Amino acid sequence: MSEVSSGNRKIEVCFSPHSYEVYKSKDTIVVIVDILRATSAICTAFEYGVKSIIPVATIAEAKKFKQQGYLVGAERDGSPVEGFDFGNSPYNYMTDKIKGQHIVLTTTNGTQAIEVSKDAYRVVIGSFLNIHALCKWLTGQNKNVLLLCSGWKNRFNLEDGVFAGAIAEELSKDPAFHSLGDSALAAKYLYQSAKEDIHKFLRNSSHKERLARLNLKEDIKYCFKIGNSAIIPVLEGNALVKSDY
Amino acid sequence: MSEVSSGNRKIEVCFSPHSYEVYKSKDTIVVIVDILRATSAICTAFEYGVKSIIPVATIAEAKKFKQQGYLVGAERDGSPVEGFDFGNSPYNYMTDKIKGQHIVLTTTNGTQAIEVSKDAYRVVIGSFLNIHALCKWLTGQNKNVLLLCSGWKNRFNLEDGVFAGAIAEELSKDPAFHSLGDSALAAKYLYQSAKEDIHKFLRNSSHKERLARLNLKEDIKYCFKIGNSAIIPVLEGNALVKSDY
Repeated sequence: MSEVSSGNRKIEVCFSPHSYEVYKSKDTIVVIVDILRATSAICTAFEYGVKSIIPVATIAEAKKFKQQGYLVGAERDGSPVEGFDFGNSPYNYMTDKIKGQHIVLTTTNGTQAIEVSKDAYRVVIGSFLNIHALCKWLTGQNKNVLLLCSGWKNRFNLEDGVFAGAIAEELSKDPAFHSLGDSALAAKYLYQSAKEDIHKFLRNSSHKERLARLNLKEDIKYCFKIGNSAIIPVLEGNALVKSDY
Repeated sequence: MSEVSSGNRKIEVCFSPHSYEVYKSKDTIVVIVDILRATSAICTAFEYGVKSIIPVATIAEAKKFKQQGYLVGAERDGSPVEGFDFGNSPYNYMTDKIKGQHIVLTTTNGTQAIEVSKDAYRVVIGSFLNIHALCKWLTGQNKNVLLLCSGWKNRFNLEDGVFAGAIAEELSKDPAFHSLGDSALAAKYLYQSAKEDIHKFLRNSSHKERLARLNLKEDIKYCFKIGNSAIIPVLEGNALVKSDY
């Protein structure tokens, strides 16, 4: 596998799964970002001992797995889908039920982002829960980094942009990442505007409003808390597993 | 034609022509943004008396018009294309040659953005040259506004994002525009980070670097200067003409 010459590693941000084809490149590590709430929920599930998570794009696929006896999480438009075991609230996955299990997940945005990028060099999951471990790991890989924001139904969303900016800021401290694409620069500026008080910054954002209407304030608080998770979920074949870095 | 209820007009920003289909809506005024340099050049040409500008997507189409005797501007990858009359430097259009003429233009990004959005309720051209007149005009229309950034080959670029943010900030002062989409909020924050010193802010941007290599520093200076142009170029049929607002 080819490596990128040090000092010339690129960081870019793709603000929507719909634009992935514009940014895709074989030699790039893709970080999936869906802060509210898929990637936060995935990181939580690994902290609670899940063995693997199979992301699927459609409810139909999720149903097939359910019929085979899998535990399945399914969310559309911010709400859990009837007939499944979980939605995509991180709190759903704080349970011993998932320990050692292979589970299945489909969400409005996050699992779509995984679906479009699955042929990348590597696909990993990012959230505020594992941000420190993730940045450390990304810095150690000799690859370009593409932060793929899940957005909301292929539109830009603020919280994913801010998180991408937090990663871009942290990585760009390393001289290996000489080259920030315009999208990464913009995300970094966004994060710099937000970081003093992320909740205040996101007060007006569309998705936060949507979730507040659904009475998910605790979820929001949880998803923006910087955590100490050392686990980096990585896509191996058709399932997310704990990276053995 | 339907009107949007006052106090509920939306501003959104689409960061790439590639994403236009995600944001498109019949009842929306689309503002084409290609600060470096297509929309700056178009506004300049109208200031110098051009009668109309026919935007075309391909060099092949541009050639056909050239053979019919039109004056034609053609740019690819930042440079003028051989065999045509102009590139897309605004300075190319500061000439009496274009006065009263119908001319043709094809560029790497800007004319592509016009092409994808041509079925919108209205398509107008924005740049720092006509920003004041444009904001005043947009405020007076009872429609939603979509700022369509041309970007660079369908990637996000910083200067178009910053300009979109300048418009979003100005329009959002009017209570009619109650609703800023996340993309418009992000652009507004970008502009707020940039406005003290736009040149410094854009120092690292990809396209500015590209143009600096092509020795176009004067163009860059010109394109970021807030002008007093009162002309709003608007797409009528297949040609941009001076709006008769």
